[in-house]
Amino acid sequence: MPIIRIEVMKGRTEAELAAIGQGVHRALVECCGVPERDHFQVITEHEPGRFIYDPGYLGIARTDGFVFVQVFFSAGRTTEQKKAFYARVAELLNIQAHVRPEDVAIALVENTPENWSFGHGVAQYLTLPKDQWR
Amino acid sequence: MPIIRIEVMKGRTEAELAAIGQGVHRALVECCGVPERDHFQVITEHEPGRFIYDPGYLGIARTDGFVFVQVFFSAGRTTEQKKAFYARVAELLNIQAHVRPEDVAIALVENTPENWSFGHGVAQYLTLPKDQWR
Amino acid sequence: MPIIRIEVMKGRTEAELAAIGQGVHRALVECCGVPERDHFQVITEHEPGRFIYDPGYLGIARTDGFVFVQVFFSAGRTTEQKKAFYARVAELLNIQAHVRPEDVAIALVENTPENWSFGHGVAQYLTLPKDQWR
Repeated sequence: MPIIRIEVMKGRTEAELAAIGQGVHRALVECCGVPERDHFQVITEHEPGRFIYDPGYLGIARTDGFVFVQVFFSAGRTTEQKKAFYARVAELLNIQAHVRPEDVAIALVENTPENWSFGHGVAQYLTLPKDQWR
Repeated sequence: MPIIRIEVMKGRTEAELAAIGQGVHRALVECCGVPERDHFQVITEHEPGRFIYDPGYLGIARTDGFVFVQVFFSAGRTTEQKKAFYARVAELLNIQAHVRPEDVAIALVENTPENWSFGHGVAQYLTLPKDQWR
Repeated sequence: MPIIRIEVMKGRTEAELAAIGQGVHRALVECCGVPERDHFQVITEHEPGRFIYDPGYLGIARTDGFVFVQVFFSAGRTTEQKKAFYARVAELLNIQAHVRPEDVAIALVENTPENWSFGHGVAQYLTLPKDQWR
């Protein structure tokens, strides 16, 4: 499971928020081998002054359209997979939700398979063969 | 310290929310050796469309009663402790807050003792003997 | 990049919230070598019953003025840097936002440089020389 936390400034439409969430999930499926149904997200809208970003760090011009995506998942993805994921998120959010590529920041936090339970109080990634993670 | 982030859909009663928080804490104390007073949590209620879950991943039938629990704590718990913790959370949330066991998902994120300060700007886990962590 | 998540109880002024965010950032810049412009934060205000803290864990007397700071950043800071950071946060939040030093708790979560993208779908910490992280 990844659990994904997405932060945006207040003011986006329902359709945009849905497209942002779906774009991040789609990129995980395509680039990181995440199962199609492994889809868990929290999307939070913030008032001004509660979501702080620098408008120029690393020479990138950010606006209030800034989207911050934090993905918690198990370690094991390669650097190439992560790079492909970043690029695909920026692309999909631009196409589907009109987010400027400059306004997409992403951070990954990795743990281990034993650190997940998906229900019934069971650590499924320890008890269920990988070909049944669907 | 663990810091625990609990996500639920809007609509639960105050009593249910309190019971969910207390159940997660109780399970940490019983199964993972967390001190009784080491109790720090953030509980967030979400509108539809802001808290996304798959209703069938891994063959588990989830509903809008879905509760996601993310625990940040120091590494050092065994796999057996973690498995006992998952089972006890599902059990206590069912008994005390009427949460279906299918609707409880948990993720752990581990760090190290030097990564905590509990007040006064001091890294207590480096300066205080473990028998005084209470 | 650090991404910083700050939790407070509802009721603080805009000026206090801004001072809390700026104090945490200032301490990161001074003590942990974080670039001045590397400033990204989420500040969340909570209703009673949604932000739980123990009023006496480790012998520290906490009040509803409690502030919890969670910092996600790349590994590499020394224990000495982290200890200096904790002390400086407590000091700055006290001076600038009237937060009692007892009411400041901090947790760090570390990842790796390849786990960050700051825009354009690129992993800047892999592609940009460190002397250009500004």
